[in-house]
Amino acid sequence: MSDVITLSYLIETPDSPEKLAAKIASDQSTGTFVPLAAETEELKNRVAARVVSVTPLPFSATPSFPTNENGPFNRALAEIAFPFDAIGTDLSALMTVAIGGVFSIRGFSGIRVVDMKLPDAFAEAWPGPQFGITGSRQLTGVQGRPIIGTIVKPALGLRPHETAALVKEVIEADVDFVKDDEKLMSPAYSPLAERVKAIMPLILDHEQKTGKKVMYAWGISATDPDTMMRNHDLVVKAGGNCAVININSIGFGAMAFLRKRSQVVLHAHRNGWDILTRHPGLGMDFKVYQQFWRLLGVDQFQINGIKVKYWEPDESFVSSFKALQQPLFNQHQQPLPVAGSGQWGGQAPETFDRTGRTVDLMYLCGGGIVSHPGGAGAGVKAVKQAWEAAVQGVPLEDYAKHHTELAQSIATFADGKGA
Amino acid sequence: MSDVITLSYLIETPDSPEKLAAKIASDQSTGTFVPLAAETEELKNRVAARVVSVTPLPFSATPSFPTNENGPFNRALAEIAFPFDAIGTDLSALMTVAIGGVFSIRGFSGIRVVDMKLPDAFAEAWPGPQFGITGSRQLTGVQGRPIIGTIVKPALGLRPHETAALVKEVIEADVDFVKDDEKLMSPAYSPLAERVKAIMPLILDHEQKTGKKVMYAWGISATDPDTMMRNHDLVVKAGGNCAVININSIGFGAMAFLRKRSQVVLHAHRNGWDILTRHPGLGMDFKVYQQFWRLLGVDQFQINGIKVKYWEPDESFVSSFKALQQPLFNQHQQPLPVAGSGQWGGQAPETFDRTGRTVDLMYLCGGGIVSHPGGAGAGVKAVKQAWEAAVQGVPLEDYAKHHTELAQSIATFADGKGA
Repeated sequence: MSDVITLSYLIETPDSPEKLAAKIASDQSTGTFVPLAAETEELKNRVAARVVSVTPLPFSATPSFPTNENGPFNRALAEIAFPFDAIGTDLSALMTVAIGGVFSIRGFSGIRVVDMKLPDAFAEAWPGPQFGITGSRQLTGVQGRPIIGTIVKPALGLRPHETAALVKEVIEADVDFVKDDEKLMSPAYSPLAERVKAIMPLILDHEQKTGKKVMYAWGISATDPDTMMRNHDLVVKAGGNCAVININSIGFGAMAFLRKRSQVVLHAHRNGWDILTRHPGLGMDFKVYQQFWRLLGVDQFQINGIKVKYWEPDESFVSSFKALQQPLFNQHQQPLPVAGSGQWGGQAPETFDRTGRTVDLMYLCGGGIVSHPGGAGAGVKAVKQAWEAAVQGVPLEDYAKHHTELAQSIATFADGKGA
Repeated sequence: MSDVITLSYLIETPDSPEKLAAKIASDQSTGTFVPLAAETEELKNRVAARVVSVTPLPFSATPSFPTNENGPFNRALAEIAFPFDAIGTDLSALMTVAIGGVFSIRGFSGIRVVDMKLPDAFAEAWPGPQFGITGSRQLTGVQGRPIIGTIVKPALGLRPHETAALVKEVIEADVDFVKDDEKLMSPAYSPLAERVKAIMPLILDHEQKTGKKVMYAWGISATDPDTMMRNHDLVVKAGGNCAVININSIGFGAMAFLRKRSQVVLHAHRNGWDILTRHPGLGMDFKVYQQFWRLLGVDQFQINGIKVKYWEPDESFVSSFKALQQPLFNQHQQPLPVAGSGQWGGQAPETFDRTGRTVDLMYLCGGGIVSHPGGAGAGVKAVKQAWEAAVQGVPLEDYAKHHTELAQSIATFADGKGA
């Protein structure tokens, strides 16, 4: 018997969840609106999707989508198996058949894809991360603690020499990683080539002097994959080793194209992802979404963090982190989870405790480093101290008694003052 | 003064819409969570987004997203102008800055992008449709009426020779256009190369005999743009002139890559789009979405139709149609709107009347043609008759008195029996 691709859907409907589950299976494989002579049983057996189970959940009094129908709105978790032969390993085919089309079906008051299990053929067909955790650690030389990163802000408007001045400050502050804001790609006032020319020498100089090469993630994303490859090549030529990729904006195809040719660490920013997940009754879980992007080759995955400035609740960050920790295929590298947004070190203990007490992550602080009252250098020290405390299980306040920088961070950023 | 890119957002919040609008403008341009010394006024003026207007709308008693906050939920339409220099013409930059990131902002109980106005620089930077309405008409030889198309069903499972047998039937039925179901790309049981080999000779034979070349839209979509181009090339080499593209599944980059090299009409299937639009308080309007894909080069755009089998209401189809009719940039071709799903001719009068009485569309019928009791030939005739009646303003029932095939269609498909 051949393999199957299994998807789990959270179905909400004033109608019968079983009926809707059967409709997904039918519509997304052999089904059509009028029975056709050629639709033989043999054919159906070959490619027809099959409802594996429909597990009832408590109903909802209100619908997730506005509807004219009356409640209660029945909810269930439906598991549907698609024969591997119906889809193959092409990720856009998988997205089209098992996810995309499902959302057009009539009769739902809510529909969300919450899990996906892929057969091993996908591991052969797709490369996965080229660097992942292991490569990120090798390139930064950071072992035994989180890789500490920062972001150059303001997001937009700095000219290359202005950005360079800020970068100089943070690399001298002994940060491990710096990134362009994801909104900064190659606008007229700061073309990527100019930015690379202004900044890369600072990184190489610092490496010469200290032996430490700061990883800089360049905003190489571009709609045209040829342009993106030119951007990639100029970064590589200048000695760069990382790039920020706006994965949703460029799409699967461009990511596949880049990964086949890439020599750099691919740091994914998932802006736009919130549209797919912000309403809990619609869209998909990160658990599903991340599988596509890991197969395509994301090395470092931004997933927000604890107490972020965005809408995303802490639980959502924690479950995203756990999804990334889960091996997808054994022969693939594990991606590096990146915690960021409003981070200053204060969230280190909770981040550590809720993610299985791991230090295999990047911890990205913007204001939490550069707005430290002692300067960026003190900011980096404070973040490292916060992680030492977290790993040792010492409360931050206690650790701060003998660690001035952390004490200053707490005085500046704690208790809702925020980074 | 340089150009601006203007976006309109439907904001819903228990807080102040003005405050949230200001937050979008700040977060998505120069804003950061801690004021930085380098963030000068000069810089802000160069790239800062600006709230143009906030127009209050009636509040909502219930939130679009579940929230712990109490209502009422204030609603407003906010117009925000982004300096062209902050973004440039890159579509993934535009998506990242003006759309993607907005959905991560805290404090909304609903957020939807409802309009977008782009400056002329985008017309220079992007090619738009290569064929559009004009090219589609030239290649099919159809003038003065809708291009009549059909879809090979079942969606999945037919082997190439089985698909070919169905295609033979519909091309002999005098249909103008045939397409692979969008879920059929290149699975093991029906590799694209085999399908082309089995079907293309039938189309070329028919052309030899009748002078009429049926346009066949091949499922060339693939995640890897190199694979997609190989698919494209084998279609072109065999004499094909059209392809179905799963635009959301492949993404902007792959579409840009294809359009630069394409010699065929690009027929867009937007599966997955419903995730972005099904909840009226979240996501974006087609009016916004279609601008990206038109710039990237979609020639024919599937947008459902009147009384479809999917969730999408008729009003949504009508407004999508109108969005496509609206010239985007004068120097670009107009794309061909494609009405489909459950169509059999019965929807022709309403389609015609509600879309500005135009015949510049493709009218795509599956069962409405192939399940006609008189066979596919009678099905095509019936659909053409329905459109003649619509254009002449004659009720279908009257026109059917002297048009047997239409009369049979009405008897088979009308009054909720459905195509």
